[in-house]
Amino acid sequence: PKENWKEPLKVEMQFILLSILSVVEKLQTVTVYFLVTMKWKNVFVTWNPQDFCNISKLVLPVDTFWSPYIIIYEQVDEEKSLSRPFLTITHTGIIHTTQQHRVTITCSLEMHQFPFDTQTCLMTMYSFMNLAQGPSPSGLKMGDRIQLSKTHSFEHQGSFTKAKTTTQAKSTMQETRSIWSQALMLISMKRRPILYVLNLIFPTCALYLLDMAILFSTCSYGDKISFQLSLIIGESVLAVILKDILPTSSDDPPVIVIFFIGVFVLMIMGVLETCLLMQLKKK
Amino acid sequence: PKENWKEPLKVEMQFILLSILSVVEKLQTVTVYFLVTMKWKNVFVTWNPQDFCNISKLVLPVDTFWSPYIIIYEQVDEEKSLSRPFLTITHTGIIHTTQQHRVTITCSLEMHQFPFDTQTCLMTMYSFMNLAQGPSPSGLKMGDRIQLSKTHSFEHQGSFTKAKTTTQAKSTMQETRSIWSQALMLISMKRRPILYVLNLIFPTCALYLLDMAILFSTCSYGDKISFQLSLIIGESVLAVILKDILPTSSDDPPVIVIFFIGVFVLMIMGVLETCLLMQLKKK
Amino acid sequence: PKENWKEPLKVEMQFILLSILSVVEKLQTVTVYFLVTMKWKNVFVTWNPQDFCNISKLVLPVDTFWSPYIIIYEQVDEEKSLSRPFLTITHTGIIHTTQQHRVTITCSLEMHQFPFDTQTCLMTMYSFMNLAQGPSPSGLKMGDRIQLSKTHSFEHQGSFTKAKTTTQAKSTMQETRSIWSQALMLISMKRRPILYVLNLIFPTCALYLLDMAILFSTCSYGDKISFQLSLIIGESVLAVILKDILPTSSDDPPVIVIFFIGVFVLMIMGVLETCLLMQLKKK
Amino acid sequence: PKENWKEPLKVEMQFILLSILSVVEKLQTVTVYFLVTMKWKNVFVTWNPQDFCNISKLVLPVDTFWSPYIIIYEQVDEEKSLSRPFLTITHTGIIHTTQQHRVTITCSLEMHQFPFDTQTCLMTMYSFMNLAQGPSPSGLKMGDRIQLSKTHSFEHQGSFTKAKTTTQAKSTMQETRSIWSQALMLISMKRRPILYVLNLIFPTCALYLLDMAILFSTCSYGDKISFQLSLIIGESVLAVILKDILPTSSDDPPVIVIFFIGVFVLMIMGVLETCLLMQLKKK
Amino acid sequence: PKENWKEPLKVEMQFILLSILSVVEKLQTVTVYFLVTMKWKNVFVTWNPQDFCNISKLVLPVDTFWSPYIIIYEQVDEEKSLSRPFLTITHTGIIHTTQQHRVTITCSLEMHQFPFDTQTCLMTMYSFMNLAQGPSPSGLKMGDRIQLSKTHSFEHQGSFTKAKTTTQAKSTMQETRSIWSQALMLISMKRRPILYVLNLIFPTCALYLLDMAILFSTCSYGDKISFQLSLIIGESVLAVILKDILPTSSDDPPVIVIFFIGVFVLMIMGVLETCLLMQLKKK
Repeated sequence: PKENWKEPLKVEMQFILLSILSVVEKLQTVTVYFLVTMKWKNVFVTWNPQDFCNISKLVLPVDTFWSPYIIIYEQVDEEKSLSRPFLTITHTGIIHTTQQHRVTITCSLEMHQFPFDTQTCLMTMYSFMNLAQGPSPSGLKMGDRIQLSKTHSFEHQGSFTKAKTTTQAKSTMQETRSIWSQALMLISMKRRPILYVLNLIFPTCALYLLDMAILFSTCSYGDKISFQLSLIIGESVLAVILKDILPTSSDDPPVIVIFFIGVFVLMIMGVLETCLLMQLKKK
Repeated sequence: PKENWKEPLKVEMQFILLSILSVVEKLQTVTVYFLVTMKWKNVFVTWNPQDFCNISKLVLPVDTFWSPYIIIYEQVDEEKSLSRPFLTITHTGIIHTTQQHRVTITCSLEMHQFPFDTQTCLMTMYSFMNLAQGPSPSGLKMGDRIQLSKTHSFEHQGSFTKAKTTTQAKSTMQETRSIWSQALMLISMKRRPILYVLNLIFPTCALYLLDMAILFSTCSYGDKISFQLSLIIGESVLAVILKDILPTSSDDPPVIVIFFIGVFVLMIMGVLETCLLMQLKKK
Repeated sequence: PKENWKEPLKVEMQFILLSILSVVEKLQTVTVYFLVTMKWKNVFVTWNPQDFCNISKLVLPVDTFWSPYIIIYEQVDEEKSLSRPFLTITHTGIIHTTQQHRVTITCSLEMHQFPFDTQTCLMTMYSFMNLAQGPSPSGLKMGDRIQLSKTHSFEHQGSFTKAKTTTQAKSTMQETRSIWSQALMLISMKRRPILYVLNLIFPTCALYLLDMAILFSTCSYGDKISFQLSLIIGESVLAVILKDILPTSSDDPPVIVIFFIGVFVLMIMGVLETCLLMQLKKK
Repeated sequence: PKENWKEPLKVEMQFILLSILSVVEKLQTVTVYFLVTMKWKNVFVTWNPQDFCNISKLVLPVDTFWSPYIIIYEQVDEEKSLSRPFLTITHTGIIHTTQQHRVTITCSLEMHQFPFDTQTCLMTMYSFMNLAQGPSPSGLKMGDRIQLSKTHSFEHQGSFTKAKTTTQAKSTMQETRSIWSQALMLISMKRRPILYVLNLIFPTCALYLLDMAILFSTCSYGDKISFQLSLIIGESVLAVILKDILPTSSDDPPVIVIFFIGVFVLMIMGVLETCLLMQLKKK
Repeated sequence: PKENWKEPLKVEMQFILLSILSVVEKLQTVTVYFLVTMKWKNVFVTWNPQDFCNISKLVLPVDTFWSPYIIIYEQVDEEKSLSRPFLTITHTGIIHTTQQHRVTITCSLEMHQFPFDTQTCLMTMYSFMNLAQGPSPSGLKMGDRIQLSKTHSFEHQGSFTKAKTTTQAKSTMQETRSIWSQALMLISMKRRPILYVLNLIFPTCALYLLDMAILFSTCSYGDKISFQLSLIIGESVLAVILKDILPTSSDDPPVIVIFFIGVFVLMIMGVLETCLLMQLKKK
């Protein structure tokens, strides 16, 4: 369904990110939900509106004409394409189609700065048949003019803030001497750290402040140790919260773990110091 | 399957919300289960009951005639349309059909007032082919008379109270110079806060009351600190409950978190005050 | 596939509840697994066994003949009909068919008496085409003789005891002047409270007993408060168990929550009383 | 596809249990994964290898010939038959076919002896058309020679040890005067208790030992009560572990719960005894 | 679709491991996601490019030609083959095809050295029709030259480090006198222990260090017991973390459990020793 089989077909794509449905740190996967609008010209499907009662636009089932078959390279799950099985044809042969995709992609999530991290995921869309150069009946040049529109996108209010997407059309050389044109989507998202701060970092700091206050107070040494052990129990309970929140995936531990372990060590050093002072005083 | 292709087809819709199956705050999705009853006239399907043994109503499989294809804009998951594959035709050409839908829609859930929040979700139903104006063979005017009936709806007793639904038929201008008619459903639901109050807010208040009682009691300072630290451990255990209950999605933290953190701070201030008083007294 | 289209077809149903697979209190859904055996007469499918080598019974794929299409009104999930795609035909035209259904129905679960509650769920089966009266080619009279057999049913040993089922055939008038015949199944199930009692109620009572013993003992007031605070921490840990067990759905809280909160309040009152007594004694 | 329709077809089955994928105590279901190899003779599919270039064996898609349709009576979920859609035919008409099944069956799990329990599940396979006696064109005699081979079975190392399977061919009389032949598989599996012992029983015993040591020590009564309350808090924390591990399904509680509750009661009795002694001494 | 039916077809396979999606220790399953590129020659599909406008390469739907049907022996779940339904044909008859597979395989996971373990999983791919010797129209010789390329593989950053894969082509004798050729993939992966060390082993060591410090300090015996009991409570809280982390599958417990239990025993021995010393001193 192309005009001249020597030249590749130009497909204009529009990518609208609707929602980031889940970010699973442990499996390094991100589930996104987006709309892809494609527009191309099929020169064999033209008509004169005057001949057909001024009908200049038709809505037809999607399988009546050829349409590009898009593959996402990073996809790791079965695709759940949602139901919009129609395409729109104008009398000049321009075909519009909109597809809803719910795709789980793999994405290298760097957890070192958790929970203050910003993740960037790459989504590479290409058509399996897009030999962009050379004589091939299925040559398809995708992404000539990829437009990133934001006309009506949901603003997802989940644990990540509204992501920015950057699209890019690239032609890469492959080993088979043919140029594939790909459309790259960069989805960058920033985590909202407020609840992690309130639930974990703030109580840890507060307990440490208390620990310091007790250390420099004028209680007896026995009381000091008793109080400090109470604080360590409280810190252990917070460790249960930390374990539930934290993904167990990265090789170098997140900053928040190092901070937490550091406070834990300082509190235990405090108890040891008190014990030592008591020993010295006794002698 | 319309009488006059110049005029759009009028489809009467009836929307019955049966159940809110889940509200996932983290993913900002709501799964609803509803019935849609559609009624339209097909002028080509009329007969005279006298000619056919007084049969004035037929029940036929749903794919024997054209029926509108409804799309929900906010839908983010595969639709699970349940099995009622029949439509009813009367001898005057009126076609009734009832569809059960189980749809997961995305909905901006505002968690600031959690657990005393009221959420409002919008569900936009439209037909992909509904170019409501202009000459188009598939013109479909939906929602002329959207009736919200409540004749027999389950009253869902889940963590949200019975939701109210408001429907609205709107014609919106799109960039393609055609008017689409949509049917908007507003589902507003109020969370039941009773268990959150009993499980979290009440014990927190009780522990704070105890803290105050101990602060103003006439124990020795050492005992006071010991008691207050016990209360802080109890509060830490409640923080584990808070973490499990709370969705981690909003940018400004929910009221309940601020309340909880506030009480925590006040309890720690109490210990610090006791330490300070003890220091002053010693001097 | 009926003998006389003026009279409705009589279908005998047999409902065998095999298992209650899950009861989700939060979503108010119950997943049941049952067998439905249907038996009706098709007068066009008769033969003389003598003519066909004494074959008096045939097993054929289910789609060779018409069979009733059963809809369950309360169903909220995709039906998973399991694989028994055969029906048995005798030479007199009696057709037997057995279907395994795994259905998730919505059911109003009243959690007030949790964990001593007995839930009753209604399952309404009807055929979409069963206009039980009037001339209609698809008239189907269902449930003339609904038999509830218990010949071989699994006894489910889950968190509910063996449920009783009551079936009932009802003809209800609808607004369309036709009588629909439905088959109602009442599934009543009683929760097994033993583990909730052992895990939650018993420890709570034990801790309260200890609290009383300490309150009326002759320790010093400081020791009393210290002991009582330890018990309150233990009670907080039990609150974590309570939160995990409890569904958060009902509007009036379950009895077990009120009991738990009551004990918590009494324990805190005990501490306050001790503080007060200490104050009075000091003066 | 049988030689003589008066005699039932003999199907040899071979059942290889590969893996027990999950045992859900709460729902009383067991998911097993097994291979079924079936072998029967189809007299109409014979050829002379000399006529066809010495080809004595063919591999064909499974739907080119009739093959028995196996139903598992205890199955409660949709079957996930995995992909081996081929059967092997030798020139003498012997047909081999191997099917991978992943089946969730209901099984009465007796939790009384948890975690030292041995569960036995019955799996009844029969063909819906197997009227083993009498003239019937679909007579199928299954399980004449059920062989339980263990030639290459995975040894599942999960929370149950390697299960033994016992198969049995049974002919049962049904109410319809026909004998059905079934193949019964008995899967017996023994739970591995080592981690439950190390995580729960051992710490409970250790805490009780400590409790006894404190009870018979020569501390002051006030100290004794304080220490015993600490141990009760530790025991409460273990109760959280117990609750997560334990299935809430049986009517008589598991031995491990009774043991745990017993230790809890003894510890509380210890505190009460200390209080009583203190009272008596005061007087 | 082979040139000479007496000789088996040589299929070159290329296996690219993209991602390890999950490792479920309890069920002993591993979900991997990989690409398989297959390349074979079909002598019947050749053409002269000069005759067809220099087209030397075609992209066609995958079902226009025969392609090998690959089975994975260890697979335990429904396969989710992702959507690349095209194959590439060159004018010399070489056919390339790439398939994305998401497969859950069973794998014997040895948990004894957890969390410092290295797991090795075997994946056996074979074609059901590959009678590698003898006259058979479907003879298929797979894995003649299995190449393990790593040209573009995601580096999975999950809880396991980048796995190495080793492939191997093996011809095994089966009982049916035919040689099957298989392709074996060995996936070995090393767990990242850093977070387990920081969350569990480090705090346990720290608490034990404190316990020792208290044991050899010069506090009174009453204070010592009180402090040691506090540490035992803290250790119980860590046991909750241990229980959540640990898989309950192996017969001999993991090293980390033995370490944890050992520390627990030592801490309890410390309390008993203090009690004993107090007794001796009193006398």
